[in-house]
Amino acid sequence: MSINFRSDNEAPVAPEILDAVAAVNQGFVHAYGEDQLTADLEQKFSEVFATDVLVWPLATGTAANSLAMAQICEPFGSIYCHAHAHMNTDECGAPEFFTGGAKLAGLKGDHGKLQPGDLASALDETGYLDDHEVLPSGLSLSQATEFGTVYTPDEVKSLCEVARGHNLKVHMDGARFANAVQSLGVAPADITWKAGIDLMSFGATKNGAMMAEALLVFDSSLAVQLGRKRKRAGHLLSKMRYVSAQLDACLCDDRWLAWAGNANKQATRLSVGLADLPGIELLHPVQANEVFVRMSEKISGGLYKAGFQFHLWPGTQDIFRLVCTWCTKDEDVDSLLNKASQLAVVS
Amino acid sequence: MSINFRSDNEAPVAPEILDAVAAVNQGFVHAYGEDQLTADLEQKFSEVFATDVLVWPLATGTAANSLAMAQICEPFGSIYCHAHAHMNTDECGAPEFFTGGAKLAGLKGDHGKLQPGDLASALDETGYLDDHEVLPSGLSLSQATEFGTVYTPDEVKSLCEVARGHNLKVHMDGARFANAVQSLGVAPADITWKAGIDLMSFGATKNGAMMAEALLVFDSSLAVQLGRKRKRAGHLLSKMRYVSAQLDACLCDDRWLAWAGNANKQATRLSVGLADLPGIELLHPVQANEVFVRMSEKISGGLYKAGFQFHLWPGTQDIFRLVCTWCTKDEDVDSLLNKASQLAVVS
Amino acid sequence: MSINFRSDNEAPVAPEILDAVAAVNQGFVHAYGEDQLTADLEQKFSEVFATDVLVWPLATGTAANSLAMAQICEPFGSIYCHAHAHMNTDECGAPEFFTGGAKLAGLKGDHGKLQPGDLASALDETGYLDDHEVLPSGLSLSQATEFGTVYTPDEVKSLCEVARGHNLKVHMDGARFANAVQSLGVAPADITWKAGIDLMSFGATKNGAMMAEALLVFDSSLAVQLGRKRKRAGHLLSKMRYVSAQLDACLCDDRWLAWAGNANKQATRLSVGLADLPGIELLHPVQANEVFVRMSEKISGGLYKAGFQFHLWPGTQDIFRLVCTWCTKDEDVDSLLNKASQLAVVS
Amino acid sequence: MSINFRSDNEAPVAPEILDAVAAVNQGFVHAYGEDQLTADLEQKFSEVFATDVLVWPLATGTAANSLAMAQICEPFGSIYCHAHAHMNTDECGAPEFFTGGAKLAGLKGDHGKLQPGDLASALDETGYLDDHEVLPSGLSLSQATEFGTVYTPDEVKSLCEVARGHNLKVHMDGARFANAVQSLGVAPADITWKAGIDLMSFGATKNGAMMAEALLVFDSSLAVQLGRKRKRAGHLLSKMRYVSAQLDACLCDDRWLAWAGNANKQATRLSVGLADLPGIELLHPVQANEVFVRMSEKISGGLYKAGFQFHLWPGTQDIFRLVCTWCTKDEDVDSLLNKASQLAVVS
Repeated sequence: MSINFRSDNEAPVAPEILDAVAAVNQGFVHAYGEDQLTADLEQKFSEVFATDVLVWPLATGTAANSLAMAQICEPFGSIYCHAHAHMNTDECGAPEFFTGGAKLAGLKGDHGKLQPGDLASALDETGYLDDHEVLPSGLSLSQATEFGTVYTPDEVKSLCEVARGHNLKVHMDGARFANAVQSLGVAPADITWKAGIDLMSFGATKNGAMMAEALLVFDSSLAVQLGRKRKRAGHLLSKMRYVSAQLDACLCDDRWLAWAGNANKQATRLSVGLADLPGIELLHPVQANEVFVRMSEKISGGLYKAGFQFHLWPGTQDIFRLVCTWCTKDEDVDSLLNKASQLAVVS
Repeated sequence: MSINFRSDNEAPVAPEILDAVAAVNQGFVHAYGEDQLTADLEQKFSEVFATDVLVWPLATGTAANSLAMAQICEPFGSIYCHAHAHMNTDECGAPEFFTGGAKLAGLKGDHGKLQPGDLASALDETGYLDDHEVLPSGLSLSQATEFGTVYTPDEVKSLCEVARGHNLKVHMDGARFANAVQSLGVAPADITWKAGIDLMSFGATKNGAMMAEALLVFDSSLAVQLGRKRKRAGHLLSKMRYVSAQLDACLCDDRWLAWAGNANKQATRLSVGLADLPGIELLHPVQANEVFVRMSEKISGGLYKAGFQFHLWPGTQDIFRLVCTWCTKDEDVDSLLNKASQLAVVS
Repeated sequence: MSINFRSDNEAPVAPEILDAVAAVNQGFVHAYGEDQLTADLEQKFSEVFATDVLVWPLATGTAANSLAMAQICEPFGSIYCHAHAHMNTDECGAPEFFTGGAKLAGLKGDHGKLQPGDLASALDETGYLDDHEVLPSGLSLSQATEFGTVYTPDEVKSLCEVARGHNLKVHMDGARFANAVQSLGVAPADITWKAGIDLMSFGATKNGAMMAEALLVFDSSLAVQLGRKRKRAGHLLSKMRYVSAQLDACLCDDRWLAWAGNANKQATRLSVGLADLPGIELLHPVQANEVFVRMSEKISGGLYKAGFQFHLWPGTQDIFRLVCTWCTKDEDVDSLLNKASQLAVVS
Repeated sequence: MSINFRSDNEAPVAPEILDAVAAVNQGFVHAYGEDQLTADLEQKFSEVFATDVLVWPLATGTAANSLAMAQICEPFGSIYCHAHAHMNTDECGAPEFFTGGAKLAGLKGDHGKLQPGDLASALDETGYLDDHEVLPSGLSLSQATEFGTVYTPDEVKSLCEVARGHNLKVHMDGARFANAVQSLGVAPADITWKAGIDLMSFGATKNGAMMAEALLVFDSSLAVQLGRKRKRAGHLLSKMRYVSAQLDACLCDDRWLAWAGNANKQATRLSVGLADLPGIELLHPVQANEVFVRMSEKISGGLYKAGFQFHLWPGTQDIFRLVCTWCTKDEDVDSLLNKASQLAVVS
């Protein structure tokens, strides 16, 4: 037996996605995104976000994040983000590459969330050195965060206000945006453009798709020459329609929310169950589909032995991340909780 | 009616590809290429090429080409290629981006093919200016070329010898490699590593796949830190297995050669038929799946009107490219030839 | 005996330059160009050019050229210049570095000069491929050219008109601008902003200074964030006043023109004398301070043996460049001509 | 009256420097560093450092630092330094530019000094994420530090040992290296290559020169292609001899140490005097030529009014930096101390 809580990237693709890919495979279609399905995505995303949205389908989230950075930050600029933001720690310097060498300024913040006051303090320290210092240019928020927490609309708004007060543009890394929307029970607009977000990475790959992300631009002035940067980075897909079909399938019938809803629900069940057990400490509020716990080696080792898969958090000895997905089942969670209970009692 | 000879990128995906994608969709699998299917690709490509091959699955050909350039050329270097090479004219400076600002030196050559003598002359002009000049570092050959011609094994060998004599590494842009292999009737090894190629972009997208390319490295010393460059460029696919499955499906039962074989056959039929017609001039030998012709406006206009689609060559008034694909049918070609004959008679 | 016609970079510094450097060495002065002498340069250059000029003192011509390129061309752009332009052949890819990987498109042209028709043709070939191709962004003219010729005001104007018709900004590489002004007998304005030049590299180092160049910006919108790019490239001199003093000393009493005048005069004398000799062929019109000749080995070898120094042109067997400078003396030229005459008679 | 404690960059140039520049101005000399004076520098620096040293004369410290970074860190790498290191805060992203987008990891540490334990902890957190994370590649130490403190030989050694244990190369930013050597009373070798430093920026500009820095490379394998990177960055000075002459003049008769000795001595006198006064708090040990104090507005305002110049530390309200230089005189310090005493008594 093997039950996987390692990553939503390891989950299979939803059947609706495969169906959509097969369905689009009808005869010859213009390449490089000049197809009808891709064109229609703008209308569909615009409906979802209740405003005009420019849509750039992409194959990876790093591409979406990095192209966004290149749009809001020049080589001599800096981007503020959480010290543990994916783009700061897990993308091997992709933002630096795409921007031509900008700086990422990583700020601290409990549970992966930035605080307006900390951002303001950091920004207040800049601006004294003229050309000797980099130009603060952007802010990037992860929603949901790398620790499975979410920003409320008001929290996003407060951060965006600080950012705007210093002429920063604001990006949202929405690799798990669906989980955040579902968790908060808000409209997508409420935590994005209405709260001050200028552009965002909309993730589908972790949420049931095969490889489908989109860079969404709310402020069309930020899309200038994005096309050339995309091409130049090797991210203009010739048969883009097969990615667009996945995005379309996600949005259709609000599947993206349903899938994220299941992932969130299972993560909540998992965390509630684990939190009760001795020897297990819940490290962050579980507001999306990720559960971070400190576990004794007895329990973690026992779970591994029993075939459960999940990640030891890098650089730690006893912190573990468990991720639920669009297709995690009640019995997967129950099974882990059962085993953990047994191990907890014994220990 | 609409029959498309615009681009192999506009063709649908072969059913075997879709089947393979569906087949790989079984449960949870490790992400980022740490799956068995991806691992097995090295063995399979090694068999096809009769030598050890390192395989890096990617979503686009520009990514494959550009990452290759970054492996063989430092920022202060230069890469020799045909003036009309795709990477020089159609990738919006991607090689410059990935290398950190290297120079592309575009050389002339009939029918899209470089001549060893011209390469030698160009290289002989370098080396006099010490640090003032860029360091010649790489050669990139397109096989098949951008004008639908191919290099014989001896031609590749001669070019590679010149390159090696000046310490260049040699890359092959094989976006249409299958068409070249099929056309030449040689083993893949004969026109690659045996002839002096160090690494290559292996294209499948234009040949029946959905989005599947591979950077193949024959000289393993050229793969150092390729992984970080791939990640940093946003080209490490989290659910890589769905691209690997496509590559696997291409190689299986030599489908890649069968598909390219059909494309080549139809292009030959098309060119033979067109060459006979008054008012149509064949511009390049047809050795792969592309046909370049000069046509009177009468004929081209008539064909467009009748629903045939093909590209006017950029920057020209009367030069057209017609591309055949894995699924171009006898009747597609016959139909175009019929119509062209009628138009040619009338004109 | 050793008389040096190798390069104007090898000439000593004019005494007025050393005097100026010593004169500025009075007590403490604000650093990083925030000194009065540097501030006053703008007024002085503005007088010389009869328009408002923004002045950026720099230590090298490559810095001036490359920063200019970074101001007029984004990473996804291209810059047109002569194939033999210094920035294309002798700066080891500096424009590519500073622009973040733009392309240089080198055009041919007799005697180092671009022709409007050739530029127009090259530009007309662009614009068909949307995001797949780089964006033509800049034109750079060398004045005087790398082959010692000059553009007339009308020639500059014609080229700038073509450039503007395609939305290019135009830069002038004036490493030997003084020689051009002196040769043409025009006002500096006539061959720069009045003819359509947007920004230029003004060279003093080759013309009697120690290390002093200036990036001059006529269109102030092109100076945005130039300061940060300069700093980031390590070209913001902390004790800038010692470079500014050199520039000031050059402009003072029109010394820059007097110095270039001598260099031009001696080059003309040299070329006239050489042109008469059998076995010597003058290769380019001598319109500044450089003389390019084809010479028999007898003559060139004899001159070398007699202690004259000059460069064999890279990549050639029998083409030589002789450069005259601000301090080349009548007797230096006479001496070489005498010797060459003897050698020519003998041969 | 105006007495300047703002920056050593604002001090005049030592007469010996001007003399040396004038002395080198004898006839024609080969350009681009191919002169005897430049060649001899290697011997002279090698004597100073008691080992073979490769010497690259440059015009700015940012150039020296950044070229060093480009030699030890690839684009996908990271460099560890103090959070307040000049290259991290004051060079507008120059290291990022020259490396092609590497990351700077700024660590904390009292008085501008890194602690081996902190470095070890930071490095121990890396290495878990394979290609997803940047590769720790370099360490840069400032000696003297940005806060006027110095590392002892043992402290340098300890940091270098940690660095080497993680395969980092180590750079020393010696913009004020002379001050550190003088302060510690050690041989230059003791705090550089003998302690594990691989390459360093040797500063002369702040210490009496006009514009003269040198990148010194102790490990010759780290100089590969440095020449091309220097040229490409516009930092190959055509008349390099005039910079080399400055470096030569600094080393001659150990003037560099004498000049730094005066600066240090005056800073010590200044700090001792200030430390005694009420309303003034000394913030860092004064081990070189910089004094950092917290002063009441009464005192600082009074000093400003009396004509003393010094910097308010960026981002603070009441922290000031006072810098002494090669030519700061006893009476300059006495005069400030007198005035400060008066103000302190009054307040």
